[in-house]
Amino acid sequence: MSSSSPSKRKIFNDPVYGFISIPNDLIFDLIEHRYFQRLRRISQLGLTNAVYSGAIHTRFQHALGAMHLMTEAIEVIRSKGIEITEAEANGVLVAILMHDIGHGPFSHTLERSLVEGVSHEDISAIIMDRLNQEFNGQLDLAIPIFRNQYPKKFLHQLVSSQLDMDRLDYLKRDSFFSGVSEGVIGLDRIIKMLNVVNDGLVVEAKGIYSIEKFLISRRIMYWQVYLHKTVLGAEYLLMHILKRAKELADRGVELFATPSFRTLLYHHYSREDFLASPEAFESFLSIDDFDILTSVKVWVNHPDPVLANMCRKLAQRDLLKVEMQNHPFDPTYLERVFSKALNKYGFSPEETAYFVFNDSITNSAYQPHLNKINILFKDGTVKDFAKAFDNEYIAGWSEVVKKHFFCYPKGL
Amino acid sequence: MSSSSPSKRKIFNDPVYGFISIPNDLIFDLIEHRYFQRLRRISQLGLTNAVYSGAIHTRFQHALGAMHLMTEAIEVIRSKGIEITEAEANGVLVAILMHDIGHGPFSHTLERSLVEGVSHEDISAIIMDRLNQEFNGQLDLAIPIFRNQYPKKFLHQLVSSQLDMDRLDYLKRDSFFSGVSEGVIGLDRIIKMLNVVNDGLVVEAKGIYSIEKFLISRRIMYWQVYLHKTVLGAEYLLMHILKRAKELADRGVELFATPSFRTLLYHHYSREDFLASPEAFESFLSIDDFDILTSVKVWVNHPDPVLANMCRKLAQRDLLKVEMQNHPFDPTYLERVFSKALNKYGFSPEETAYFVFNDSITNSAYQPHLNKINILFKDGTVKDFAKAFDNEYIAGWSEVVKKHFFCYPKGL
Amino acid sequence: MSSSSPSKRKIFNDPVYGFISIPNDLIFDLIEHRYFQRLRRISQLGLTNAVYSGAIHTRFQHALGAMHLMTEAIEVIRSKGIEITEAEANGVLVAILMHDIGHGPFSHTLERSLVEGVSHEDISAIIMDRLNQEFNGQLDLAIPIFRNQYPKKFLHQLVSSQLDMDRLDYLKRDSFFSGVSEGVIGLDRIIKMLNVVNDGLVVEAKGIYSIEKFLISRRIMYWQVYLHKTVLGAEYLLMHILKRAKELADRGVELFATPSFRTLLYHHYSREDFLASPEAFESFLSIDDFDILTSVKVWVNHPDPVLANMCRKLAQRDLLKVEMQNHPFDPTYLERVFSKALNKYGFSPEETAYFVFNDSITNSAYQPHLNKINILFKDGTVKDFAKAFDNEYIAGWSEVVKKHFFCYPKGL
Amino acid sequence: MSSSSPSKRKIFNDPVYGFISIPNDLIFDLIEHRYFQRLRRISQLGLTNAVYSGAIHTRFQHALGAMHLMTEAIEVIRSKGIEITEAEANGVLVAILMHDIGHGPFSHTLERSLVEGVSHEDISAIIMDRLNQEFNGQLDLAIPIFRNQYPKKFLHQLVSSQLDMDRLDYLKRDSFFSGVSEGVIGLDRIIKMLNVVNDGLVVEAKGIYSIEKFLISRRIMYWQVYLHKTVLGAEYLLMHILKRAKELADRGVELFATPSFRTLLYHHYSREDFLASPEAFESFLSIDDFDILTSVKVWVNHPDPVLANMCRKLAQRDLLKVEMQNHPFDPTYLERVFSKALNKYGFSPEETAYFVFNDSITNSAYQPHLNKINILFKDGTVKDFAKAFDNEYIAGWSEVVKKHFFCYPKGL
Repeated sequence: MSSSSPSKRKIFNDPVYGFISIPNDLIFDLIEHRYFQRLRRISQLGLTNAVYSGAIHTRFQHALGAMHLMTEAIEVIRSKGIEITEAEANGVLVAILMHDIGHGPFSHTLERSLVEGVSHEDISAIIMDRLNQEFNGQLDLAIPIFRNQYPKKFLHQLVSSQLDMDRLDYLKRDSFFSGVSEGVIGLDRIIKMLNVVNDGLVVEAKGIYSIEKFLISRRIMYWQVYLHKTVLGAEYLLMHILKRAKELADRGVELFATPSFRTLLYHHYSREDFLASPEAFESFLSIDDFDILTSVKVWVNHPDPVLANMCRKLAQRDLLKVEMQNHPFDPTYLERVFSKALNKYGFSPEETAYFVFNDSITNSAYQPHLNKINILFKDGTVKDFAKAFDNEYIAGWSEVVKKHFFCYPKGL
Repeated sequence: MSSSSPSKRKIFNDPVYGFISIPNDLIFDLIEHRYFQRLRRISQLGLTNAVYSGAIHTRFQHALGAMHLMTEAIEVIRSKGIEITEAEANGVLVAILMHDIGHGPFSHTLERSLVEGVSHEDISAIIMDRLNQEFNGQLDLAIPIFRNQYPKKFLHQLVSSQLDMDRLDYLKRDSFFSGVSEGVIGLDRIIKMLNVVNDGLVVEAKGIYSIEKFLISRRIMYWQVYLHKTVLGAEYLLMHILKRAKELADRGVELFATPSFRTLLYHHYSREDFLASPEAFESFLSIDDFDILTSVKVWVNHPDPVLANMCRKLAQRDLLKVEMQNHPFDPTYLERVFSKALNKYGFSPEETAYFVFNDSITNSAYQPHLNKINILFKDGTVKDFAKAFDNEYIAGWSEVVKKHFFCYPKGL
Repeated sequence: MSSSSPSKRKIFNDPVYGFISIPNDLIFDLIEHRYFQRLRRISQLGLTNAVYSGAIHTRFQHALGAMHLMTEAIEVIRSKGIEITEAEANGVLVAILMHDIGHGPFSHTLERSLVEGVSHEDISAIIMDRLNQEFNGQLDLAIPIFRNQYPKKFLHQLVSSQLDMDRLDYLKRDSFFSGVSEGVIGLDRIIKMLNVVNDGLVVEAKGIYSIEKFLISRRIMYWQVYLHKTVLGAEYLLMHILKRAKELADRGVELFATPSFRTLLYHHYSREDFLASPEAFESFLSIDDFDILTSVKVWVNHPDPVLANMCRKLAQRDLLKVEMQNHPFDPTYLERVFSKALNKYGFSPEETAYFVFNDSITNSAYQPHLNKINILFKDGTVKDFAKAFDNEYIAGWSEVVKKHFFCYPKGL
Repeated sequence: MSSSSPSKRKIFNDPVYGFISIPNDLIFDLIEHRYFQRLRRISQLGLTNAVYSGAIHTRFQHALGAMHLMTEAIEVIRSKGIEITEAEANGVLVAILMHDIGHGPFSHTLERSLVEGVSHEDISAIIMDRLNQEFNGQLDLAIPIFRNQYPKKFLHQLVSSQLDMDRLDYLKRDSFFSGVSEGVIGLDRIIKMLNVVNDGLVVEAKGIYSIEKFLISRRIMYWQVYLHKTVLGAEYLLMHILKRAKELADRGVELFATPSFRTLLYHHYSREDFLASPEAFESFLSIDDFDILTSVKVWVNHPDPVLANMCRKLAQRDLLKVEMQNHPFDPTYLERVFSKALNKYGFSPEETAYFVFNDSITNSAYQPHLNKINILFKDGTVKDFAKAFDNEYIAGWSEVVKKHFFCYPKGL
């Protein structure tokens, strides 16, 4: 990790970690690439800043941060006598740097409206192959590590698992910028306690309380930030705006948009067509938060009252009222509110459903069935975290918590 | 400051201070106003994030932060026996909250290109009068305090002076987000040491070292961040892009733009016309960073090669190379580079001057002639900070440092 | 809280909170009193620094910190419309400042060895009465608040309950100085969310995740710091040293000690005698960490091999080996080790038991039976924290966890 | 630096840096040695906690911290292509760990009273030789590096120069614990910018503002903390206490003291005798803050009124009043106060001089004549920091500031 030419021996100032050093020339060049530079204009948390006004950090910052943690993890794991060759180190660093490269603006929202059926994993796969070509095979190791096709499985776990560097960075960074101190985690100790047993990532028993705190912090970040009811409402609103815009475009109605955004609005690609079309692909990689939000602002004055109304709500932060509870809503209550809205706005039922709708979300503190966190004890035994306490203390943690929410305009 | 209705007893999470409490209903309503909400989409430091990728905080966050510090300053000053009535406290809080309300996107750049001759102070003045009307005279005290027309002069100094809450917040916040720890200042002690003598703001002598550190931090932030050569180059580039766009618009060339941005691009208002025109005014208040940067991205493909070239440089972060030095550049050197550029690009001299240009900037650590910082000693005497050390230590601090810089495309 | 004379308008620099302001003259004078000044020489965490070398902060710092939090809590509660008169505010501030005044050095250890039967609460009671006399009744409100004899019960809860300012400060401070980031809590939000319903302290529902994190942090601090096995071993060692010293003193053996420490070593007071004896009382208030640890260092060379051996272990940090587990130790294992020690050292069984011994400790994350944390919901209902989640998530938290430990010399 | 056996792969929790890893077994064993363990009971800043109550951190913490920074500096310098062999790395780590090993309690005070003429450097030299013997020559490289007798001179500069790791750690740590945020420095950038040119330590030009801020912070820490007038007064008081005690001991008067302290009190060693005497040496290494302060507490009741009076002042924090100014005191003023004291206390003039005395101190922000900080520019030139600004800005920084102070009892 030490072979950088002086001109590329760059360090980034980072509010979270102080400094982030670029470990080598390939990584420097990947960061400079326009596919990566676009992440500067894609916020990590989408519309979360409607509630947490500081949460405007970008995917660019997050990707650098995750790479920074990876350099530390590599150093720790090597110091425990586990071999990671220079080529593997480079591979795993590139893999983590690129893990989010396929994300578009407001990613989860777009995947459910503008580019239905196309996932950011699809896009990532294509981009990584292209970059490998462009960089003459220098991603030959990074790609199989990323896709879990490399023999040393723990390298993939550093990129994608319950304790990957992605997750460690985003929890730390998201809590930092949102100002939610409840989400702060002690990264240093978790990373210091990483080790590898039987080709699997483990945490040494001395770090068990750090894992406990990490899981709680993660749980709290979900309920307090990621699934905050007002944020959810805003994200659904944006999804509905894009659905409506696409509907109008289908009907040939004129909509203000940048050329790339227009391409995506006025076409209907199947997943296969999309991935095969250079035009669709380039358009997708050209749009960012700016394209979307600029259009939303302009559409405030669009002749379609449904679109205009939703855009005004989002642009001027007159957000939907959102109720959230642990049990399903009473259908008669839902219906009563819906009728009121029908009467008040004079839109059709389909149109009214853009403003008045309900749905549910789930989360759990620890998901042992998906992806265990393994604890290494002094005597060499390895146990699932959930079994590492021989009492009932964390028994409730794997329960899946489901919450129901209901959105409608203020003043209804 | 305690009369808020429960529904408006809001607190904001802030990465810098933890929490910011909204002191009363008027301030809550002003924050909710769309004139203020637009500050959410105007970054505090413009293009600085081209170098410091974390520096993407907004004028919205800064205005809330400065108001937060003002609540602390009021409490400290009152505790020293100086009277600040509830109405005055409210006035000074509104004044600081509104101090940046007239800023547009990339403010200083725009004032020198798109809306020449119109300053953000002009806009602020109009906005505050409008809001005062809209809020039935509730800004009757805030406005004279803001304009230094209120008898208690120290209230204005809290809003605008060498030690105002604006400055304290922006230095803290800008260093925090840019990750430049050299700029970090100890706000707490400065604020605790504020006092008022003869209607003028002073700092008690025990805080003298905090002022010393504050001035050094400020000096360093100027050279390391605000006047960073690459940032300067990027800002000039944007200014030239806007000038070129306006030039093209004057000639009737079609340019992609949001409707509001288009209004400003395709009109030439004199300062007076601008301020009198509701259309100009509304357009100005509708644009933000998103309008500008979206157009820059689209203009990368504009038929005008000069515009397209500059936009590509900015959008893909292929920024100008910038040399900076303490003495003027040798004219023959400047000319040699300029000729090279002329030959290489084939643009006219006027067009080439968009890419190859030089200028100078100045700054000094302490400007006693402009606005003193007064120190209050235990025996009751008050001295200018520059005289408070009876030795030569800070003698050099008031020297005006001038730096010359020269920008040209990479690879020339 | 604003009536301090200028000369006593002191602020303390505090590594945790930045600054701590002294709210009035009475509090200034109480801090200056020698009973309070002795807390400067009594460490908050006793021998914990044997493991966490930074944990050397004092009871003096903690008491000031808790008082600082109380000023914030008072401000928050008043801002919610709950009346706290100036006299009550002063009372509750004095009560929290004095809450630890009766602690001696290594308090829990001493209470089980040197001054058996005398609790720090006994001493506190006497001291507060004396100070009230000395300060002409200025503690007339503080004392009943401290003793829960004041009508407004929530004031006592701020001093002593599951969410008192004592606890909030010590968790924050202990994790800060020990460097255990897992123990860090978000005080600001907890305090901002305090409110009073039916004369009882409650936390508003928006703060529920902060309470969740607080309880977890507290749980972790117990297992990772307060009940750390090596710390436990060191504390038992000191307790055994003092017991042995007292035994020798009883037999008339000469022991190096400061005069005050000598008084306590060479007398046997019943609880009643102790509390009635001015000599005992003054001696107790004269000793601090320095008296105890200086003697331990000197006793390394004492002719009694049992005492000398234990003192050498403590002074040179050759601490006992400690095993800890969730189930009781196998008696035959305990016996086998004990026999080995008997043979190796040649001490009597009673003497050997100073070095080889076992015991157990308990803790639980939340103790609803003792002292509920009540959550106030938006609809005005108040629920116990344990009932505030309508699912099984925290079901295991009230389980009492019991751990068994076994100590013996290294190299046995 | 990677060859530690698993059992010694220890990490220390540190409030300042989070974690400090022990790089190898030798360093682990040196830390465990009783010569090093005594630093746990020697505070870094002596009596400074009389003013800054948090400043109770120890020389043990500081030595570990400086070693931690050294591991970072080694890594940075190696990454720039400068060779540091494993043996040299180990040598420089041991050298910095041991740099303060010869310090006794209240070191500068003791050197001017109890053990006049014996410096901590003398003691360090002996200890390092002894440890080298005890550890079979494993300090063979550390010792010449420490004494600047090793060919690669920059290694010594990392241990002792204007930018050594000692200084970087103590400024950071002292400001952290004292809570004086004005002293906070940006270590990370300074260390990242270290490089070596012509076997001399340099700072790359990009770090020049960090050096500027570092020097200012250091200057402020001197005036605000290290040379704080009340702290100075307390240190002189302790020095006078020890002088008086020694005077009484010379006269055969009985004084309470631990055996080791007694040895030093009741003997008069010349420097040569002291260094040759195993008894003196062992006694010196046995005493720490506890021995000194315990005696001071006991001497409060000593029959000698001069000693008792000074001890009472120190123990109960009834400290001397201290005036400080930039010009010498008027001799008639000094005399007038002295006469008053003579009359009031009835002590002899010699005795009175223990309580009423004046002296002076000096400091400067940058001392280029002693030890330059060299800046490496992009073009390869190296300039003294003072010359690196080509203007007058820092002209005043090398001025030696002298301050005069005058101490006398309160209420005189």
